Amino acid sequence: MTDNVKIREVGPRDGLQNEKVWIDTSDKVEWINQLSETGLSYIELTSFVHPKWIPALADASEVVKAVKKKSSVTFGALVPNERGLERALEANIDEVAVFLSASETHNLKNINKSIKDTIPVLRDVIRGAKSNGKSVRAYVSTVFGCPYEGAVDIYQVKKLAVSLMEQGVDELSLGDTIGVATPKEIINVITEIKKEIKVSQIALHAHDTRGTALANVYAAYLLGVRAFDGAVGGLGGCPYAPGASGNVATEDLVYLLEGLGGKTGIELQSLIESGKWIQSKLGRDLPSHHLQLALATENKEGFKNENTAY
Amino acid sequence: MTDNVKIREVGPRDGLQNEKVWIDTSDKVEWINQLSETGLSYIELTSFVHPKWIPALADASEVVKAVKKKSSVTFGALVPNERGLERALEANIDEVAVFLSASETHNLKNINKSIKDTIPVLRDVIRGAKSNGKSVRAYVSTVFGCPYEGAVDIYQVKKLAVSLMEQGVDELSLGDTIGVATPKEIINVITEIKKEIKVSQIALHAHDTRGTALANVYAAYLLGVRAFDGAVGGLGGCPYAPGASGNVATEDLVYLLEGLGGKTGIELQSLIESGKWIQSKLGRDLPSHHLQLALATENKEGFKNENTAY
Repeated sequence: MTDNVKIREVGPRDGLQNEKVWIDTSDKVEWINQLSETGLSYIELTSFVHPKWIPALADASEVVKAVKKKSSVTFGALVPNERGLERALEANIDEVAVFLSASETHNLKNINKSIKDTIPVLRDVIRGAKSNGKSVRAYVSTVFGCPYEGAVDIYQVKKLAVSLMEQGVDELSLGDTIGVATPKEIINVITEIKKEIKVSQIALHAHDTRGTALANVYAAYLLGVRAFDGAVGGLGGCPYAPGASGNVATEDLVYLLEGLGGKTGIELQSLIESGKWIQSKLGRDLPSHHLQLALATENKEGFKNENTAY
Repeated sequence: MTDNVKIREVGPRDGLQNEKVWIDTSDKVEWINQLSETGLSYIELTSFVHPKWIPALADASEVVKAVKKKSSVTFGALVPNERGLERALEANIDEVAVFLSASETHNLKNINKSIKDTIPVLRDVIRGAKSNGKSVRAYVSTVFGCPYEGAVDIYQVKKLAVSLMEQGVDELSLGDTIGVATPKEIINVITEIKKEIKVSQIALHAHDTRGTALANVYAAYLLGVRAFDGAVGGLGGCPYAPGASGNVATEDLVYLLEGLGGKTGIELQSLIESGKWIQSKLGRDLPSHHLQLALATENKEGFKNENTAY
């Protein structure tokens, strides 16, 4: 098994999409340019969903065009349909990300279509992206649990996953959208998916809502998964749950994976700095452990991270 | 391997010892009585360290005497020396917990003695406790890293651990005091310790300073460890790092372990309620994921823990 681990930074997209504080386009670009210098090899910049649905990312084209390109970084964006694909191609994105949910109700609430009706839309986007020489990543959401339906059928997940890969998807990101998984579900699902899809094409998209994200990452790592999504600062909490955690923090993810012997190629300290920067723009404490530890350490001269006494 | 998991609740001791807000004795007792009703089988009530060193626990005797006894719960307390043991026995504690650090500098700063000079003191406490029919738990701190010395020698840890067990200790709690471990260090250390000590006598004491606590718990669980320390609410952050996480939150620990198939015997919802209660007394947001999720959910009518969109 390779020690090289691919980190997919989704902070600018999954992290910011639900934020109520408007981040100026120039600030988004400045922040993404910082992220590009940390050693990250993939950054998901934005979403070409209609601005009516995600106003926080209404400046998608401007952001993609203004970001400083770097040959070591693949810049991706979420694309829901052919109209979105046109905009993404016009802005010259490197990689296209499509998405659907594994549970019917969640898909309906988010995409306003049944899963059955979503698949042909994604097929057209994937085909269009591929014919334009773009790689494609596919997100399947609510793989490990749905806020409306509870448990999700593993075979339904597998069917969707296989269908997406057959259409030419390069990487499949399995999403624990509401952060309910424990390693048991991770093992059950990924073991089943691995029967049909190469593990080198599987990524885990973990949310830390119940604190289990890094345990789940570890479980997936033990199964051979070597691609993980994260958001700097642990951005991406639900807007209706201000205290709840969001995406697993990329800083914490990198610390864990490097600790396991994985090579991420990422400079942890730079990542923490970019977390501080976006936290200052959002004006609230983000859930990343490394970020809060760094800030606490700085605020206390001579602090040695000592847990006092016994 | 048994599915029964023993949770050691250390919130009233490790959680509160560094708090600057004074919690009234009657409130501590009320909170501990709540914890006794959650299904917990071990609660560490306080510390019989001299009040000069830990003023937050200056009411140790009063707390132990006032708590409502329950046959299903073992009530423990930290005991540093023979004077502390006298007080603990006079208050009629069920179990005595002794402690030292695996790193010389940390031991010196915390206990004001070298490791060599600490061992005879602990031996006398263990002997005294045993001769009074009390079970004994031993904490070894900084097992996976020291804030002053960095990495800690595994053989030094093993030597201390074996010496404690030979003196009659019933359970050995290996402490990641500053939360630096990843599963790699957990595996390295526990695999070595298991060569000399039965895994049924080993507990993991994880702190979540860098977000790795539950990944570490999972790694230890895979090695057969079935006893884990936690603090409700994730109490126990360092006083000098107000934003940094403390002990792994017992709520999050229970969710993970039950998810893995472990039987904790604990009612998660009751535990969360006791977390809310102590958070309201401390007047600051505690780091427990389940606690913050519960509060966010309540604060938003109709909230379904939905991570919006894609």
